[in-house]
Amino acid sequence: SNGVSATKKLCLEQTTELSYAERAKLPNVHPLAAKLLNIMEEKSSNLCVSLDLTSSEELLQLADSLGPLVCILKTHVDILKDYTAGFTQKLQALAEKHNFLIFEDRKFADIGNTVKHQYDGGVYQISSWSHIVNAHVVPGPGVVQGLGAIGKPLGRGCLLIAQMSSQGSLATGEYTQAALKMAEDHSDFVIGFICGSKITKRPEFIHMTPGVQMKAGGDGLGQQYTTPEEVLCNKGSDVIIVGRGILEAPDRRTAAELYRKCGWQAYTKRLGQSGQ
Amino acid sequence: SNGVSATKKLCLEQTTELSYAERAKLPNVHPLAAKLLNIMEEKSSNLCVSLDLTSSEELLQLADSLGPLVCILKTHVDILKDYTAGFTQKLQALAEKHNFLIFEDRKFADIGNTVKHQYDGGVYQISSWSHIVNAHVVPGPGVVQGLGAIGKPLGRGCLLIAQMSSQGSLATGEYTQAALKMAEDHSDFVIGFICGSKITKRPEFIHMTPGVQMKAGGDGLGQQYTTPEEVLCNKGSDVIIVGRGILEAPDRRTAAELYRKCGWQAYTKRLGQSGQ
Repeated sequence: SNGVSATKKLCLEQTTELSYAERAKLPNVHPLAAKLLNIMEEKSSNLCVSLDLTSSEELLQLADSLGPLVCILKTHVDILKDYTAGFTQKLQALAEKHNFLIFEDRKFADIGNTVKHQYDGGVYQISSWSHIVNAHVVPGPGVVQGLGAIGKPLGRGCLLIAQMSSQGSLATGEYTQAALKMAEDHSDFVIGFICGSKITKRPEFIHMTPGVQMKAGGDGLGQQYTTPEEVLCNKGSDVIIVGRGILEAPDRRTAAELYRKCGWQAYTKRLGQSGQ
Repeated sequence: SNGVSATKKLCLEQTTELSYAERAKLPNVHPLAAKLLNIMEEKSSNLCVSLDLTSSEELLQLADSLGPLVCILKTHVDILKDYTAGFTQKLQALAEKHNFLIFEDRKFADIGNTVKHQYDGGVYQISSWSHIVNAHVVPGPGVVQGLGAIGKPLGRGCLLIAQMSSQGSLATGEYTQAALKMAEDHSDFVIGFICGSKITKRPEFIHMTPGVQMKAGGDGLGQQYTTPEEVLCNKGSDVIIVGRGILEAPDRRTAAELYRKCGWQAYTKRLGQSGQ
């Protein structure tokens, strides 16, 4: 217990930027976070692609095509018009083949007893195939406890939504701080945050930022975009989440490779800056 | 436009307690809210039963048995282990037969573009069968705009989650006030609130309170219970949402009738108090 405290203190005081590979070796890092950090290093990718598609077949083809370029593939399984249990089996096989993690962006947001059932049961049985899920913190700690009761025995990890990219989001200030506190209190299940910028210096936590495009802008329904360079270098986040920037490109694979390259260059630039 | 403002002003200044039937006739009331208020009056019921079951067959049998006693039947369709499209057809038929509304407690909580797809599409096609849905306000107004783009043409209504019954909930203070503001700005789709107590005097909005049991207490995963009398008379809410208080009773129909009766007595007591 003293050893753990001392290590935690060391991490908190860490000022030099650690590489993804170094962070994967930290004594308090969650095994799934370590796995992700190692994938990022191995594949030179901090790109999470968000495949918000309504056709299972199209999603699987794209997962196979973009798989080599990404560290995480993010899904909204509940918008597929032709979902079958076979879909998640095929997606898991692609995750193995291309060495990426699956992140079902379910945004659990109910009381503990309900999210347990939503995570474990129903048609989608999310806990059986998705390495990572996320949760809103507005219900209080019960939401993490309920999800953890299902996810921890399976080795799953959870991201808490500390900030949102949408206009007028209420996830700011004290709300964001409450998300951080909840993560610290449940670090055996929470591996990081959905956020616009780094919210804690603890290198065990992974910061992931949605709403990334090459050009800043919006979508007319409140979404606001920011660039890979801004996210990695100025906001201190670790993973860029790109959806429409890739899906709406004329050549999706070329676009994904561009985002991977930009994200990685920004990361190495950040490492270089901190090393000086 | 002046006429609308004058009416709104009148409603805001309303101090005498209006009956459900009187509120159904207000000029600015949403048609679905009016329908609900009329159902409540006709059936002498402010009881919403929450059927958190994992078997479709059991849910449908219970919906048929409890249907005459409730104004709303609340579902978590995503925890059913044996969901088929036939289920929602049968549920809709029972809603017609027993004159209740269906409320899928999905707690939408994503950016506008995503919730549009989640509401309209996927396996569940929630917009096609659920009269009422709810949403968290943490993403900002885009979540209501996205849902409204689907729900308004269908005559659906939305409840905003202004407060939660779970321990440590962050839906308090300014967050609750932001939910109220968002409802006022989108009153062509938002019909009321999920809340612990009345948050606005505007009688067009319906207040619905979860976590209701005959005895106060909790569930070990953060849920906190309050009684029908407390909710109706002291907290000024309109609809009691009861789940485990009925589902875990030895005789569910007898328990539901008890909650209906208690809820209605508390409502008539409130009307009597305000009339004096």
